[in-house]
Amino acid sequence: MNLQGILIVVSGFSGSGKGTIMKELLKRYDNYALSVSATTRQPREGEADGREYFFKTREEFEKMIAEEELIEYARYVNNYYGTPKAYVEEQLAAGKDVILEIELQGALKIKEKFPEALLLFVTPPSAAELKRRLVNRGTETAEVIEQRMKRAEQEAEGMESYDYYVVNDVLDACVEDVHRIICAEHGRSMRNREFAEQIKSELKGE
Amino acid sequence: MNLQGILIVVSGFSGSGKGTIMKELLKRYDNYALSVSATTRQPREGEADGREYFFKTREEFEKMIAEEELIEYARYVNNYYGTPKAYVEEQLAAGKDVILEIELQGALKIKEKFPEALLLFVTPPSAAELKRRLVNRGTETAEVIEQRMKRAEQEAEGMESYDYYVVNDVLDACVEDVHRIICAEHGRSMRNREFAEQIKSELKGE
Repeated sequence: MNLQGILIVVSGFSGSGKGTIMKELLKRYDNYALSVSATTRQPREGEADGREYFFKTREEFEKMIAEEELIEYARYVNNYYGTPKAYVEEQLAAGKDVILEIELQGALKIKEKFPEALLLFVTPPSAAELKRRLVNRGTETAEVIEQRMKRAEQEAEGMESYDYYVVNDVLDACVEDVHRIICAEHGRSMRNREFAEQIKSELKGE
Repeated sequence: MNLQGILIVVSGFSGSGKGTIMKELLKRYDNYALSVSATTRQPREGEADGREYFFKTREEFEKMIAEEELIEYARYVNNYYGTPKAYVEEQLAAGKDVILEIELQGALKIKEKFPEALLLFVTPPSAAELKRRLVNRGTETAEVIEQRMKRAEQEAEGMESYDYYVVNDVLDACVEDVHRIICAEHGRSMRNREFAEQIKSELKGE
């Protein structure tokens, strides 16, 4: 049926493990491409241009905005973050399912521009489990954990805007769940209008 | 997440192999229950009451209509056909995914009453392949084959009302496709509103 890839937005609570899930997906299956965001923030140690982010100057970024080279962008703490359009479009046309890891506001902008985008929300089985994971990391202060939990409370308000919830309980099963959702979605009727039209016109021609 | 089963409507061209797909699903996985229709038509040789159909008198059937014991019903060629409600509701509550094999009109009635029902349309890869299969059966006259193809042309007009297209090319792969769609759909946000509400209220309580 459809040969075009699916644009997939992945969001989820900090501590939900969405980053790990995406890395595993890319490792296990070759139908995925991960979109790399552009940003004006400074690279941190270990980050490479074109891998974690495309690092841009403010002028370069504003030129990308002006020339409509971004699917969506936002400003956090005086820095721009955005999704370059060219890469996403190339990969979709080549049949790749392109994954964007962005937050609610960006996800909603994507859904508006691309109604056929697939929005996944990754969550631990419960709020108690989310807290347990943040505490068990052992790297965060009680204050930071409280901030994260407050943030999760806000993020949860947007859960209804997503198409699927992905419960990350056991990582391996969760990766397979995500893959299964995406494979299944390739058969959705709204992604296969051309196929339906073709069957219809063939049947009329009989 | 959700413990409730999914109500699944399967339609498709005569010759698409949907009957075989459903039999295989029931054989391979234990999460499915097949809804048995009620009808006033006479049993044919080899048909058993409660297996192919629940055979009813006209009076019995009309009583079922009057007492709202049917999810949907229709009249074809002077006989009634309908879906008994009790069995479907029991199975859904027990967590089974209940499959109804019905045609477009019935499918649309189901979707109206149960917006969360999942509508699958089974089709061969092409109209040419549909015709080839009908011819290869060797049991139908050219005239009957032409009628079937005309019927398919009408049925195709309703394809857009379905949620997914299932292309039956290789049976085994097709059965797995259907199973994958249904498993994936259990994670859809609209089927898991309670789960989202619970996470939210837990996060508020933190």
